[in-house]
Amino acid sequence: MKTVGILGGGQLARMMVLAGTPLGARFVVLDPAADACASHVAPMVNGGFDDAPALEEFASRADVATFDFENVPAASADSLLQRVPVYPNPRALGVAQDRLAEKTLFGELDIPVAPFAVVDNRTQLDEAIARVGTPCILKTRRLGYDGKGQFRLRSAGDADAAWDALGAQASRVGLILEGFVDFERELSVVAVRDRHGGFRSWPLTENWHVDGVLSASLAPANVTDALAEQATSHARKVADALDYIGVFALELFCRDGELLANEMAPRVHNSGHWTIEGAETSQFHNHLRAVLGLPLGSTRMLGHACMLNWLGSMPSPEAVLAEPSGHWHDYGKAAREGRKVGHATLRTDSVDELACALERVGEALGRQEQVAPVVARLRETDAASEATNG
Amino acid sequence: MKTVGILGGGQLARMMVLAGTPLGARFVVLDPAADACASHVAPMVNGGFDDAPALEEFASRADVATFDFENVPAASADSLLQRVPVYPNPRALGVAQDRLAEKTLFGELDIPVAPFAVVDNRTQLDEAIARVGTPCILKTRRLGYDGKGQFRLRSAGDADAAWDALGAQASRVGLILEGFVDFERELSVVAVRDRHGGFRSWPLTENWHVDGVLSASLAPANVTDALAEQATSHARKVADALDYIGVFALELFCRDGELLANEMAPRVHNSGHWTIEGAETSQFHNHLRAVLGLPLGSTRMLGHACMLNWLGSMPSPEAVLAEPSGHWHDYGKAAREGRKVGHATLRTDSVDELACALERVGEALGRQEQVAPVVARLRETDAASEATNG
Ligand SMILES: Nc1ncnc2c1ncn2[C@@H]1O[C@H](COP(=O)(O)OP(=O)(O)OP(=O)(O)O)[C@@H](O)[C@H]1O
Ligand SMILES: Nc1ncnc2c1ncn2[C@@H]1O[C@H](COP(=O)(O)OP(=O)(O)OP(=O)(O)O)[C@@H](O)[C@H]1O
Repeated sequence: MKTVGILGGGQLARMMVLAGTPLGARFVVLDPAADACASHVAPMVNGGFDDAPALEEFASRADVATFDFENVPAASADSLLQRVPVYPNPRALGVAQDRLAEKTLFGELDIPVAPFAVVDNRTQLDEAIARVGTPCILKTRRLGYDGKGQFRLRSAGDADAAWDALGAQASRVGLILEGFVDFERELSVVAVRDRHGGFRSWPLTENWHVDGVLSASLAPANVTDALAEQATSHARKVADALDYIGVFALELFCRDGELLANEMAPRVHNSGHWTIEGAETSQFHNHLRAVLGLPLGSTRMLGHACMLNWLGSMPSPEAVLAEPSGHWHDYGKAAREGRKVGHATLRTDSVDELACALERVGEALGRQEQVAPVVARLRETDAASEATNG
Repeated sequence: MKTVGILGGGQLARMMVLAGTPLGARFVVLDPAADACASHVAPMVNGGFDDAPALEEFASRADVATFDFENVPAASADSLLQRVPVYPNPRALGVAQDRLAEKTLFGELDIPVAPFAVVDNRTQLDEAIARVGTPCILKTRRLGYDGKGQFRLRSAGDADAAWDALGAQASRVGLILEGFVDFERELSVVAVRDRHGGFRSWPLTENWHVDGVLSASLAPANVTDALAEQATSHARKVADALDYIGVFALELFCRDGELLANEMAPRVHNSGHWTIEGAETSQFHNHLRAVLGLPLGSTRMLGHACMLNWLGSMPSPEAVLAEPSGHWHDYGKAAREGRKVGHATLRTDSVDELACALERVGEALGRQEQVAPVVARLRETDAASEATNG
C-alpha cells in the first residue's frame, strides 16, 4: 500500500484523499495551518513548505508526492525529488508558477496569448502600456491566485495607481502587463496525462468569475466541436512539452470565436470539481491514478453539470440536497471573507432540467446573480438545440 | 459541524466517512482492532463494544451515533442512547440481531418467510426437522454473518452432525431451523428512511453468494415491475414498523416467482455498494443524510451496474481500471482467508456492455466462475429485450 504525500492540506488535498482512499492509497499532508481541512481525513505534518525538518518528516512518510498548493517553493519541490518521485515534476511546477515562463511556453507551442510585457520598474510600465495597449492588467508574475496580485488599468492614466498597488512586489515576484481580453467566454480544459504519455481530457468547461474568483462552472461548454478540439489540442501540447504527469487545467479566453490561453494550473482545478458527480472518473480519481501509475479512467460525462462555488461561508444545504440532482461539498473550513469554503454540483440529464434546478437553488439561497449567467447560457443552448431538432 | 460516531471501523465505516465528509461531517469510530480500516480516514477510539470507558470516550466525542457493525451488544447501544441520538434506534437493531424477532416481525407484517422453528435443545431439533421438513438449515439466532453459524441438513440423518456443529451455542445465542429455499434468485432491497418517515429505495439488486458470502451483485435486477414493487413494499413496511432511520437492506429469496424474506441488515449493505458509482446518491451518502437529518437524495440508477466482491486478498487492479466502466475499492485491509478486502464496480449504459466488460475482467483475473452467473443473467435479459424490441 503506497502513501501519497500531498504538499498543501486544503480542499484539493481533502478531495484527493476522499478519491484516492478507495484505490488503496494512504496519505500524509504537509500544511502550515494546524486546522488545514485535509487533516480531517489524513495525517498531517504541520509545517511550512520551506521548513526543512517538516519537509524531511513528510518525505520520510511518503512513497510519492504531489501538490494541492501550486506555489510551493521550487527549491522544496526539488529537494523532495531527491527522496521520492514527485508528480507533476518540479520543472512543470516551475513553469506554471511563473506567468512569463508559462506564456513563453505557450508561444513556443503556437498557442495564442494576449499581448504581454514584463515590467521590472516604473519606466518599463509606461513602455509596456504603450506596447500592450489599454485596457490592460498588471499582474504579479508569481504567487498570484484567485485574482490576487492584479490591478486593472483602463487607461495610461492608471499607471501610477497600478504601480502604487503592485510596484513594491516587482523585485520579489516580478510583474507582467497583459492586454485585457474582451472575451465572450472563459473556458478551461481539465486534463490528465499518465506516466506513459497517455492523455485524456474532460469535456470543455465554461467558467464565470466574480472579482477574479471562480463563481460557477458549466460542463459541457456549449461550443463547436472544432473549438473544443482546439482547446484540447492546446492542453495536450502543453502537457507533452512539460512531460506533465497528473491532472492540470488550461484556462482559456474565447474572443471572436478564437482561443487565447490565460494560464495553466499544475494541479486538480476548481473548474473540474463537477467531475466528481458529472464524469465516469473524477479529476481527483484520475490524478491519483496517474500519480500511482495506474490506468486512467474514462473522462466521459454523465449528462450536464453545473458547479457553484461557496465563498466566505456555507449556505444552508437543504435547498441543494432537496434537488434530485444536488450534491454538496462542505470543505470543513472556518468561515472567512472571500474564502473558498465549499461548492455544490447539480447534475442532470438535460439542459432544461439543469436550468430549472439552478433557478430554484438560486432563488432559495438568494443567489440569483450567481446562477443567472449559467441559466442564460443554458437557455441559449436549449433554444439552439430546439431550433436544430424542430 | 457535527461529529458522527460509528460503532465499528470496518469498510462500511470507511465508506461512510468518505461519503459523509463532503456533507461537512466529522467522524469518530470505535473498534476493537487497532488497524481497523476506517481509522485510515477518521480518528478512532480503540476498544471493545462492551468496554465502558471506551464507549464513554466515544460518546463524548460524537453528536450522533450509527453502526458499521450490526452485532453491537444491545446494552451498549442503549447506554449510548442516554448520551446521543442513535440511528437506527437500538430497538430496530435488536430486532435485526435476532433471526426469531426478525421473522416474527415479518410474519406480523404479512411478509412471507420460509418455515422455521426455534431450537433450544437436541430433542427440539428433531421436532423442528419434522415440522420444517428437509432440506433445511440450522442457524444461530444471533451473531451470525457471512454465512457463519450455519449448518445445512439434507435429511433428518444430519441432525447429529448439525447438533455437534452448533449445539454448544444453543444456550448463548439461540438456534433456529429454517426450511431450505430452493430459490431461483436472491434479491435485496436497499432502502433508506429519514427522520420524518420519508422512504426511498434503490432499484432491486440480484445477488450471488458463494459459501454463504456475497460474491456478486447486479442492478437493476431483471424482474417484473410487480415483483420489484412488492419487494419495495415489504421493505417499507419493515422500516415503518421499526421507525427505522438510515439505510438498511432486506434480503429476499425469489422462488416460483414469489418473494420470501430471509433477513434484514440494519446498516448499509454489501449488496448496495454498486450505488457509489451506479446511483445518483449512494447508500453511504443517503445513510449520512438520514443520520444528520438532511434531505434524502435521489436513488435513481445511472445505467447498469455489477459489483464483484474481493475475498481473501486483492487482485491486481489494472484489469478493472482499464475498463471505461471500472471502479476500484480497496479497503486497505491485510489479506486473510475469506476476509472481505475490497470490491470492484462496473457501470455501463447497456446490459450488453456490462456483460462484455465482466467477461474481460473475469478472464484477466482468472475469475470466470465469479462473473459467469452474472453474465448469464445479463445475456438472458438482453435476449429478452431484443425479442421485445425486435
Ligand atoms: N488578460 C485578461 N483579460 C481579461 N480578464 C482577465 C485577464 N486576466 C485575468 N482576467 C480575469 O481574472 C480572472 C483571474 O485571473 P488569473 O486566472 O490570471 O488569476 P489567478 O489569480 O491565477 O486566478 P486562479 O486562481 O483562478 O487561477 C480570470 O479568470 C479572468 O476572469
Ligand atoms: N433458508 C435458506 N434457504 C436457502 N439458502 C439459504 C437459506 N438461508 C441462507 N441461505 C444462503 O446462505 C446465505 C447467507 O445466509 P444468511 O443471509 O442467513 O446469513 P448471514 O450470515 O446473515 O449472511 P449475510 O452476512 O450475507 O447477511 C444466503 O444469502 C443464501 O445464499
